[in-house]
Amino acid sequence: MTGFVSLVGAGPGPVDLLTERARDRLERAELVLHDALVDSPMLDLAPGAQRFYVGKRAGRHAMGQRTIEALMVRHGRAGRRVVRLKAGDPFVLGRGGEEALALEAAGVPYEVVPGLSTAVVAPALAGVPVTHRGLSAAFLTLSGHDPQAFLPLLASLPAQGLTLVVLMGFRHRARIASELVARGWAGRTPVALIAGAGTLAQKVWTGALDELRVGQDFDPEGAPVTLTIGETVALASSWQTAPVLGAAPPLHSNLSPQRAEPS
Amino acid sequence: MTGFVSLVGAGPGPVDLLTERARDRLERAELVLHDALVDSPMLDLAPGAQRFYVGKRAGRHAMGQRTIEALMVRHGRAGRRVVRLKAGDPFVLGRGGEEALALEAAGVPYEVVPGLSTAVVAPALAGVPVTHRGLSAAFLTLSGHDPQAFLPLLASLPAQGLTLVVLMGFRHRARIASELVARGWAGRTPVALIAGAGTLAQKVWTGALDELRVGQDFDPEGAPVTLTIGETVALASSWQTAPVLGAAPPLHSNLSPQRAEPS
Repeated sequence: MTGFVSLVGAGPGPVDLLTERARDRLERAELVLHDALVDSPMLDLAPGAQRFYVGKRAGRHAMGQRTIEALMVRHGRAGRRVVRLKAGDPFVLGRGGEEALALEAAGVPYEVVPGLSTAVVAPALAGVPVTHRGLSAAFLTLSGHDPQAFLPLLASLPAQGLTLVVLMGFRHRARIASELVARGWAGRTPVALIAGAGTLAQKVWTGALDELRVGQDFDPEGAPVTLTIGETVALASSWQTAPVLGAAPPLHSNLSPQRAEPS
Repeated sequence: MTGFVSLVGAGPGPVDLLTERARDRLERAELVLHDALVDSPMLDLAPGAQRFYVGKRAGRHAMGQRTIEALMVRHGRAGRRVVRLKAGDPFVLGRGGEEALALEAAGVPYEVVPGLSTAVVAPALAGVPVTHRGLSAAFLTLSGHDPQAFLPLLASLPAQGLTLVVLMGFRHRARIASELVARGWAGRTPVALIAGAGTLAQKVWTGALDELRVGQDFDPEGAPVTLTIGETVALASSWQTAPVLGAAPPLHSNLSPQRAEPS
């Protein structure tokens, strides 16, 4: 008997931002292989499952990618219902494609259950729409992990009209900012650093490209950071009275009790 | 007494791809203002609510943007619990930012509840990861509505290393393809047209930029189309045995019965 593997996107963290399909798969899982997720309540959705932490954080790998894939294949072949729970969406810089190909090659049935991508939701949690009429009709999501990969891309971008969302690029933030300014981006272009988006430890800094360029002092306290650059970032300061997603107390109080009143 | 407005992302269509927070807001809504959504089961989640169709499709506006905003403000001020249900995510080319600003200006409390963005999920539903190690470490999401906005952007892009996801650009598909080829993109670059992503009427065509350039014959039957361009599109044909999201029969059968077995 063959099992089944679900590559599941966990979204930004709060349990009620999971999709119902994701919750269903967790509830019926026998084994959960999970990334560094901030909300342990999410794992409580799979009380009957064995759980393995296979995540990586800030360069430290708990487990190699090939080992994770081998684990999924082995337990799938052994007939188990496996959930591979990944932060954000499996297909956005999450190596979900590789994991799918490994399962494919091994002949293990699987599916992909999408999740809210950090690329869109982290800025939203800080009050930043990635697009906004008149300011930005496009957004570019890129990995800030490897300068060899991102520098040619940054060099080619027009200096306005789009929003940049950099994941895994906190370490190279000054270099990214310098490159953009060198290529004609205005030094006053608004920028946001968002750490631990969607969690109670969420921390946001907003400023300008010029400040980022000289090495902005910002301690993400070990949480993943999303760097957002562009004119729409300026909208973050527009929200005065209302609880834009996670930005103001009325909504924060909604994050934990799942069916709380929004007003 | 003031009401409360939730700007809610409905995701790609299937009800079980809603977040739980979105379902909660629908269940407690008194008024739902909704876009052209394919799945009417989603509206059934708000049985006690009045429902208004305020969507637009292929350029035909059922209602002007300012009228929609005025409706939200009026009913919010009248103390009602309003859900503005938008396809995909409110902040991805969805004018959610404008609606938030209008509510802000009127002093009506509101929140943004994110949804799965078509930009990521439509390609995924066709078996295309927007990023994949070694092929693409970035993706650009852009509106294909206005050539004056997208042409300068396309002109500046490097000819490889990223995936392009064009929303609302079906009408201009040949022009987009021509522009890219003129700027050095290989004519054999893989391309996918995905209509009605996530619905039972989903229709996918894959081919090459050169084919798109000469005006590929594809009838989306009125459904919105997502155009995806880049090397990761070639992965769509790799999935042979397994039900990548919505691409193969075993998963399709999961889309309707919400808690069906995935295997």
